[in-house]
Amino acid sequence: MSRSDKYDRVMELARRRGFFWPSYEIYGGVGGFIDYGPAGLALKRKIEDKWRDFFLRRHGFLEIETPIITPQRVFEASGHIESFKDPVTECIVCRRKYRPDHLLSDLGVQNAESMGLTELDDEVRKRDVRCPECGGDLSPTTYTQTMFKTTIGPYADSIGYGRPEAAQGIFVNFRRLHEVSRERFPIGIGQIGHALRNEISPRQGPLRLREFTIMEFEFFFDPEEPKCPYIPEVESMEITILPLRSDTERYAEPARTTIRASIEGRLILMEWMAYFMALSQQFLGELGIPPEKQRFSEKLPAERAHYSAQTFDQEILLDRWGWTEVAGHAYRTSYDLSRHIEYSGVDMRVFRPLEKPVEVEEKRLVPILSSIRREFGEGSSKVLELLNVADPEASERQLLETGSLRLGEFTLNQSHVRIHSTRRRKTGKRLIPHVVEPSFGADRLAYAVMEYAYTIKKDRVILSLPASLTPYRAVILPLVERDTLVEEANRIFRHLVECKLEVYYDAAGSIGRRYARADEIGVPLAVTIDYETLNDGTVTVRERDSWKQLRVHNSRLPKYLQDWPHGDT
Amino acid sequence: MSRSDKYDRVMELARRRGFFWPSYEIYGGVGGFIDYGPAGLALKRKIEDKWRDFFLRRHGFLEIETPIITPQRVFEASGHIESFKDPVTECIVCRRKYRPDHLLSDLGVQNAESMGLTELDDEVRKRDVRCPECGGDLSPTTYTQTMFKTTIGPYADSIGYGRPEAAQGIFVNFRRLHEVSRERFPIGIGQIGHALRNEISPRQGPLRLREFTIMEFEFFFDPEEPKCPYIPEVESMEITILPLRSDTERYAEPARTTIRASIEGRLILMEWMAYFMALSQQFLGELGIPPEKQRFSEKLPAERAHYSAQTFDQEILLDRWGWTEVAGHAYRTSYDLSRHIEYSGVDMRVFRPLEKPVEVEEKRLVPILSSIRREFGEGSSKVLELLNVADPEASERQLLETGSLRLGEFTLNQSHVRIHSTRRRKTGKRLIPHVVEPSFGADRLAYAVMEYAYTIKKDRVILSLPASLTPYRAVILPLVERDTLVEEANRIFRHLVECKLEVYYDAAGSIGRRYARADEIGVPLAVTIDYETLNDGTVTVRERDSWKQLRVHNSRLPKYLQDWPHGDT
Repeated sequence: MSRSDKYDRVMELARRRGFFWPSYEIYGGVGGFIDYGPAGLALKRKIEDKWRDFFLRRHGFLEIETPIITPQRVFEASGHIESFKDPVTECIVCRRKYRPDHLLSDLGVQNAESMGLTELDDEVRKRDVRCPECGGDLSPTTYTQTMFKTTIGPYADSIGYGRPEAAQGIFVNFRRLHEVSRERFPIGIGQIGHALRNEISPRQGPLRLREFTIMEFEFFFDPEEPKCPYIPEVESMEITILPLRSDTERYAEPARTTIRASIEGRLILMEWMAYFMALSQQFLGELGIPPEKQRFSEKLPAERAHYSAQTFDQEILLDRWGWTEVAGHAYRTSYDLSRHIEYSGVDMRVFRPLEKPVEVEEKRLVPILSSIRREFGEGSSKVLELLNVADPEASERQLLETGSLRLGEFTLNQSHVRIHSTRRRKTGKRLIPHVVEPSFGADRLAYAVMEYAYTIKKDRVILSLPASLTPYRAVILPLVERDTLVEEANRIFRHLVECKLEVYYDAAGSIGRRYARADEIGVPLAVTIDYETLNDGTVTVRERDSWKQLRVHNSRLPKYLQDWPHGDT
Repeated sequence: MSRSDKYDRVMELARRRGFFWPSYEIYGGVGGFIDYGPAGLALKRKIEDKWRDFFLRRHGFLEIETPIITPQRVFEASGHIESFKDPVTECIVCRRKYRPDHLLSDLGVQNAESMGLTELDDEVRKRDVRCPECGGDLSPTTYTQTMFKTTIGPYADSIGYGRPEAAQGIFVNFRRLHEVSRERFPIGIGQIGHALRNEISPRQGPLRLREFTIMEFEFFFDPEEPKCPYIPEVESMEITILPLRSDTERYAEPARTTIRASIEGRLILMEWMAYFMALSQQFLGELGIPPEKQRFSEKLPAERAHYSAQTFDQEILLDRWGWTEVAGHAYRTSYDLSRHIEYSGVDMRVFRPLEKPVEVEEKRLVPILSSIRREFGEGSSKVLELLNVADPEASERQLLETGSLRLGEFTLNQSHVRIHSTRRRKTGKRLIPHVVEPSFGADRLAYAVMEYAYTIKKDRVILSLPASLTPYRAVILPLVERDTLVEEANRIFRHLVECKLEVYYDAAGSIGRRYARADEIGVPLAVTIDYETLNDGTVTVRERDSWKQLRVHNSRLPKYLQDWPHGDT
């Protein structure tokens, strides 16, 4: 025990007490998957509930649930087919495969994750990196899709993928949800669910998984009205931020700043993003991770996802892993909606009335039907839909500058479309919303919460979870396993369950061992039924952190458990 | 509207009010997937919570969460690779694929789902069934895997599947969970999560999905102690049961019987199964589906899953679809655990102390190490593990009768193992638990709940959901969209959210339209903030089912909403 670090100790506790452990262990395990036992699942669900309260419910944002299996077309539109890939190299001797950037990082190379193929191969050659298993030479680096691929239905050409994020299920539904919400705008739409990333060689247990629980929401807003009305509530909050010095360089040292200053100094491009970053710091605080153990690290352009104009990783300090990402804050601009509009031909723009109507010169794309039909045949109706949603100003520029206009898979020229210009009274505008996205990994948070709650008291482990995260509120213990005590303990257990309290029953082993077990699971209160209980109806309640005991009448028990922590203990 | 049936009307409502709708609709849709909007997700989650309360929490059963992506080995062990398949035929002209059994059922052929390949082809030929799309001839029937297939990691031979049930995640973890629960036995272990079935041609919207939410638990017990102590609580409950007349024939008419009689008459083989069936009928009752619209239909041996010794489909009556399965109750015997013990070599037997130790003649398999090493080389340690967990009595019989002993992928003979017989004091026994499994589809239930709650009152739709299932407890409405009213309404909204009440805010449209909208979403109470509110702090509360209105002071509002339905309304 003494030689193991905190990560090992937390993982050992997680396994032994039924929080989580590697999946498929009876078959030797498969990297990148974990199973949640009763305590871990309860903890993860509490984290999800708190996220929901913190971000969605208080703002009246919507929550949805969409499938994991997604047809190829969606990820063509979203850019994932092209951009969601990892570099991989293969040992030419033993055929094992590796992430060359990870091999380089292990050797202390900086920014290996942002290198291109040539750069990676150059570094591998320069440092003579070889197969860590057999010492063989490594093949040139190629890219591999990081999504799980499958086919949908019986036809081989109907390709589907496991979603690597929950966001696309939100984007493709934006129009319907805009309707369902009666055109409320701006609006946030969130989703919690499993997501899949087919990592080449997952490491770090629950911190890098192939299947994980993602909690993310997309906040849709008008980029011409970027003010966030909630900024006054958080503007004086201090955060630690590690911004970029240039497009290729980070500052060496993080800076302490306020939300207000980070907006005014343009460290954070969007007010809404700054607001959600402030909330996220509070959120992690409520999970037991203090602000001084958190920071926001801006990603270099080469490190950012393809859809992002600015990204901050929200990092926390972990004992073994150092600064570790638990959330990403991305300014996705109008990228995703624009691409889905282009690929689907469905108008997902939002109509915004102007306060005062204005006279404007307005351009319109007028299709020349006969020549469109002649050229595009069956595709004509798709061309017409695309013309209907294309931006006339940008289209005119493209036509003038290049002589042609690209719309989805079609290329048009001036024989297919003309630009019509009129002056008219404009009562509103149609816009493609911009999006900021905070995205959390629930599994990493579950691990982090446990590491931060892990406490040693007199050589014994206590999982001092915050009250709102405990898997159980109490454990019900008959002092010894005798009929009368067991019967009464069962009666009390059942009653507490009916009162919707989260309790479990434990009759196995000495009372001391059962207390220790409860401490390790983070159960704040242990309720012991003894012979006095049979006489006067009182039970012993023992508190996790103070180990203090007192007697409570069992009629007061539900409220006593509900109200923990009490001011007086 | 008048020509559409209830299914169409419920589906239209589900889409329009944000319960659920077909996924990927902007790309023309993909069969077998649905998206849940805010109201539908809330409804589904309430159904899940009720299931959890009803089956897991009240019995102190465990809940876990395991991955969807599963390595091939697990489904080899579970028998799914071999048995989880559907018949498929292809049109030789247009190459469209079909389920021949479904084509035959559509023509009124009975029991087509239990036919083998030859029988299906005979029937197809006899009735001259042709391609429904182009009239072409159909190819001979073959079987196709009904699981989504993928690869895990970068190696093509590392095959994985999307799980078609949550059960295997429970079985492979049985040993760990038995430990975590400190060897509590008998015990139930449940899981709620997404599951995947790659249907050939999904039909019936939310009733037959490729990705769906399953709620299932496995109850592990000793087949020599099959008594269920809860039977007295349910024995007089009446159920409708449609048992088998023989191995190939069902009774034409269902019978009304009590739980007690169905156990005594051996209609239901296991008491625990009868108990869970009784609970399940109550559970659906609380979802708004009365007992007289439910029945239990026993499956023919040819229709049952490969692991089951007895299965009942729990069916409910739907307006368009007639009797429709919403749950399955399967007696899985020790099949799954036995197979995983065999394939993994890991002992997952449970030790049960005997009340009184007894003298017994005990057989033991003694490996002959030298000849095992000679024959099996690297596989020897696996052989030894398998010998350690094999049943000595059964192994001896096999050796005597066939001259060899099959263990996993190994075949042994008398040169590898001898049978050692001793008399010893036995203090307990090791057993492979038997399992009964109730398994529910949450999506079907969500649809069914809506169909049963769908009510017309004065030409308007009310979704009269039971109180415990409403997506929202109340809607907060400013009478008109004026600053002072909106401000006060927002204040009240925020306060109710802080009180953990599920409410939403709606300011769009006339008050009458907003009431109608709330009725359609099943919101029991509508809270209107008007000018009186600004004077005296009272609001108008309107009730969904009675349309009655009364004024409530806003300080009493949280409790008033919480306590609905009230005796006095």
